[in-house]
Amino acid sequence: MKYEVRFSGTGGQGIIRCAVLLAEAALYDGYYAAQSQVYGPESRGGKSQGEVVIKDTPIHYPKVTDLGILLCLSQQAYDSYAAEVIEGGMLIVDSDFVALSGKEKESVRVIGLPIIETARDMGNEMSANVVAMGTIVGLTNMVTEEAAHKALANSFRGKSLERNLKAYAEGYRLAKEMTK
Amino acid sequence: MKYEVRFSGTGGQGIIRCAVLLAEAALYDGYYAAQSQVYGPESRGGKSQGEVVIKDTPIHYPKVTDLGILLCLSQQAYDSYAAEVIEGGMLIVDSDFVALSGKEKESVRVIGLPIIETARDMGNEMSANVVAMGTIVGLTNMVTEEAAHKALANSFRGKSLERNLKAYAEGYRLAKEMTK
Repeated sequence: MKYEVRFSGTGGQGIIRCAVLLAEAALYDGYYAAQSQVYGPESRGGKSQGEVVIKDTPIHYPKVTDLGILLCLSQQAYDSYAAEVIEGGMLIVDSDFVALSGKEKESVRVIGLPIIETARDMGNEMSANVVAMGTIVGLTNMVTEEAAHKALANSFRGKSLERNLKAYAEGYRLAKEMTK
Repeated sequence: MKYEVRFSGTGGQGIIRCAVLLAEAALYDGYYAAQSQVYGPESRGGKSQGEVVIKDTPIHYPKVTDLGILLCLSQQAYDSYAAEVIEGGMLIVDSDFVALSGKEKESVRVIGLPIIETARDMGNEMSANVVAMGTIVGLTNMVTEEAAHKALANSFRGKSLERNLKAYAEGYRLAKEMTK
């Protein structure tokens, strides 16, 4: 069992927190996980990315080497990373904010979902990262629902936790409707 | 210019967020930064750690290779990592929660500060991570005050931001009093 995931978007979307939350959830499920991000001049242009590797055995190299799952919440992130998705991989994009180039490998599963709009409809665009987390879990089942909830409860408190549990559930629902 | 830093403590202390904030601050100062954590069975025992590497040139390997600065907010974290601090490095521990073994290398600068107690006195133990961030910046000046504030403003909103700016300022003050 091995998942290599990159979350990408613009600064302020909570991309890195989303990656941290997923890594923590994996831990609750008893897996090994590594989570990392590298910041450089390109981040100053507003691009943000965070990586997660999840395995059932110890992880020696903490970075993604084969990009199996890519999430893009901005056009710029898509333009930068989409070509790296491996054969048979999965590309999840925000359907309102990313226009596909059509250059995806044929074996890559491309999924467009209104992630940001869903967060806005719930009254808080800042929750788009957690909607995205729910979507990825819904599409892949890489962690259990219980573990995802624990990770959220470990990171948020009170009303903020309530809001994020709802955002997560909405993202999860979006994914499940897609895959019905 | 190169800093290699590990933040360590127990789960729920916001250790990883502290590492992320410092990496983001470095970015605002125009540096390159890498931030990572590896989760495994030891994390399930409650130990939490996050690493930051900050350089003025691109970073190719995202993990700490020479542990120059170590922060420990728990005894378990200290017991696990203190021996890794390199010659001439810096070890910062919470003076109320960590008992030193006395086995530190002679050239390692050891600093004990009441980080958690300071956060408690401010009414929120959950801010200990940001007090710690202020302490590390105050001791090393590895990022500017302006950059640290920007990173906080990018991560928190409203009252939570106010609280964290205060926590940061207290940590910074603690460090500066120490080094007077």
